[in-house]
Amino acid sequence: MPTFQTVRGMRDLLAEEAEAMTFVMDKARETAQLYGYREVITPVIEPYELLSAKSGEEIRQRMFTFKDLGNRTVALRPEFTSSVARLVTTSLKNEPKPLRTFSVGSVYRYDEPQRGRYREFYQSDFELIGTSNPEADAEIILLTDRLMRAVGLRNYAFKLGHVGVIRGILTQENVDEKTQNAILQRMDKKEFEEAFKLVESEECLSTLRGSLELKSDDVFKTVERIKSHVEGYCKAAESAEDLKNILRLVTEGGCPVQTVEPTFARGLEYYTGMIFEVYIPELDIALGGGGRYDKLIELFGGEPTPATGVAHGLDRIVLAMQTQKTTPTTERKKRVAVVPINEALKGEALRISQMLRNAGISAELEVMGRKMNKALEDADRRKMDYAVIVGERELKQSAVVVRDLAKREQAVVEIAKLSKTIIG
Amino acid sequence: MPTFQTVRGMRDLLAEEAEAMTFVMDKARETAQLYGYREVITPVIEPYELLSAKSGEEIRQRMFTFKDLGNRTVALRPEFTSSVARLVTTSLKNEPKPLRTFSVGSVYRYDEPQRGRYREFYQSDFELIGTSNPEADAEIILLTDRLMRAVGLRNYAFKLGHVGVIRGILTQENVDEKTQNAILQRMDKKEFEEAFKLVESEECLSTLRGSLELKSDDVFKTVERIKSHVEGYCKAAESAEDLKNILRLVTEGGCPVQTVEPTFARGLEYYTGMIFEVYIPELDIALGGGGRYDKLIELFGGEPTPATGVAHGLDRIVLAMQTQKTTPTTERKKRVAVVPINEALKGEALRISQMLRNAGISAELEVMGRKMNKALEDADRRKMDYAVIVGERELKQSAVVVRDLAKREQAVVEIAKLSKTIIG
Repeated sequence: MPTFQTVRGMRDLLAEEAEAMTFVMDKARETAQLYGYREVITPVIEPYELLSAKSGEEIRQRMFTFKDLGNRTVALRPEFTSSVARLVTTSLKNEPKPLRTFSVGSVYRYDEPQRGRYREFYQSDFELIGTSNPEADAEIILLTDRLMRAVGLRNYAFKLGHVGVIRGILTQENVDEKTQNAILQRMDKKEFEEAFKLVESEECLSTLRGSLELKSDDVFKTVERIKSHVEGYCKAAESAEDLKNILRLVTEGGCPVQTVEPTFARGLEYYTGMIFEVYIPELDIALGGGGRYDKLIELFGGEPTPATGVAHGLDRIVLAMQTQKTTPTTERKKRVAVVPINEALKGEALRISQMLRNAGISAELEVMGRKMNKALEDADRRKMDYAVIVGERELKQSAVVVRDLAKREQAVVEIAKLSKTIIG
Repeated sequence: MPTFQTVRGMRDLLAEEAEAMTFVMDKARETAQLYGYREVITPVIEPYELLSAKSGEEIRQRMFTFKDLGNRTVALRPEFTSSVARLVTTSLKNEPKPLRTFSVGSVYRYDEPQRGRYREFYQSDFELIGTSNPEADAEIILLTDRLMRAVGLRNYAFKLGHVGVIRGILTQENVDEKTQNAILQRMDKKEFEEAFKLVESEECLSTLRGSLELKSDDVFKTVERIKSHVEGYCKAAESAEDLKNILRLVTEGGCPVQTVEPTFARGLEYYTGMIFEVYIPELDIALGGGGRYDKLIELFGGEPTPATGVAHGLDRIVLAMQTQKTTPTTERKKRVAVVPINEALKGEALRISQMLRNAGISAELEVMGRKMNKALEDADRRKMDYAVIVGERELKQSAVVVRDLAKREQAVVEIAKLSKTIIG
């Protein structure tokens, strides 16, 4: 039989890569705990109807959809927010608000594979449910800021926008929601001329065109410009004010906002308010992004419930860490090879390994039945710290030989003092 | 729109349940580290051919199989071993042996849902690749023993067997492999009469029937009985000797083996040697199980490579912990509600929350804009430890009010001393 390969778009994370991913996941959990978010573990397989309801045409077409053996149309989640919204309308319906939840896991999209983009990828997702106040949006941005710092990234910067500005203008000009979605989707791809073709009113068009010119290096100035630009569009003006409040709060919280973009849009249809993304200068893909979605829970059959949230692209964060050569700063446990000098001493070597593990030391028992020299060579190649050599002569004195593999020194050590000697 | 439910067989893990799952996953990772296993993260979606090659008819029929948008026949992994075997024949082909890998994640089987059984469930999987020595099998059992202890389970016990005993008899009696698989599958379900119907030779049948009577309360006695029972069946006798060596090693390692069962079989076709399961008295489902599979890697196009491994059912371990009322012993962080007494102090409250988080304290900022009393009631209901009340008068003296929610006492505390006061 020929060897098997991964399915196109899928990939394995091995050794350092897997460890970097686990490191980032742990940091996401630590961040969650610091902000009082509690974990929810939802299924990878969800009803197609749930996932397609409000995720946007683009994602809908790229979902892994199939029928299960019970003939149900199901799909693999392309994101977490729909699953959390499902929870809020069912099991968590009666939980007091605000509700702070987070999830960490894999999501699936049938995209064209490229650097930093796979068909299975990992996210941490944070949702803050039950309030429309700007401090909630600020919190979501600030916890993302903290996660970026926690994994050791430098020079990252946030881009902020507010879907309510463009939607406010369009709604007041009687553009229906479907057309609004289509316009925002084109704006998301920076296809502005394509987007503008969908607008009929001349006045509306000129306001939209004008909004392309509002960006300034000073983010607070940009917000002020947006505010005066949309004067008269009452909902749009409210949105600009909301954006200003969020910007003020995150800046007070110490978070670097580099850009405020009036025409910024994101792929998901469910956003209603603030939206944001975070980048590092070295990569042109967002490491995370999110925003406010005040209608989704109602759409899913729940009470009208404002909410805001963020998803972090963990693969991209790992890629960013590699790009910036940020090494995870986890304390490394001492690694020890335990080698019996002959077959008869296997049981003794096993007991000593267990003792070391009880003391929190990573012990790898020689299981290949190799001769001493081969076993030591292998331990060297694996960059282990020590080899514990179990021999008859030393055992008679309740001792073993401990070899420091870096220093190439060895000494006889009493078994009772072994763990202490190794921990140092 | 009516509310959405989970797909049949899927379920959400919320709050304490999610935390228990994460706790068990962390313990699996800690155990891995103590034994020198390194994590590999493989895709949930794998080629159907890979997963079906050697998983056994039963699992094959219960896989989530579908065509992706590129018309590839894929399936959701029903277990981890096939994916690891794929790695060993491709990316990890040139890694020095022994290779110790582990994975933690979700697997998928279309089973009839019942207590402790879902169509999406979680496993930790450990594989030790490159050696056929009994100390390798012993290591796999001993690390399972350690995981059981690490999560706080009591009175758990191991059941051991060896597929080589029955296969050895059948092979010598010229029973082909397919029939052997069918016989073992029936034995796995304790359908012995059904299994025996597939055997033609009278002598073979009598040996198999006889093996049902070999069990004794003393596991070493059972192994000795097996050894004499299969005398003359050369491969079966070797297997019995191997089982005896493994049993001796795990017993020396301090692991409680309660049963050795000569007719013990497991659902997966790829086992070739030792097999085992672990149980607690209160539940009749295995919390974990595994065994030796010396042919799988070769079958997948690799060099002949002996290997042994185990999968732990993490949902079942969580269920066992609940049944034995074992509470995870993770240190609980102090939780603090931060409440500004008015709108104008939001920014100040946000800054104080950030300061607390920087000191490792879980701080939940009041984001609902509620009046003080409401916010404090809510903090009480959530069993938070402290409320930090941010008011103008105290701020003038660079201080806040700290309310101990359990003791119902409060005091003015300087902001500079706040974190220290709360950590205590």
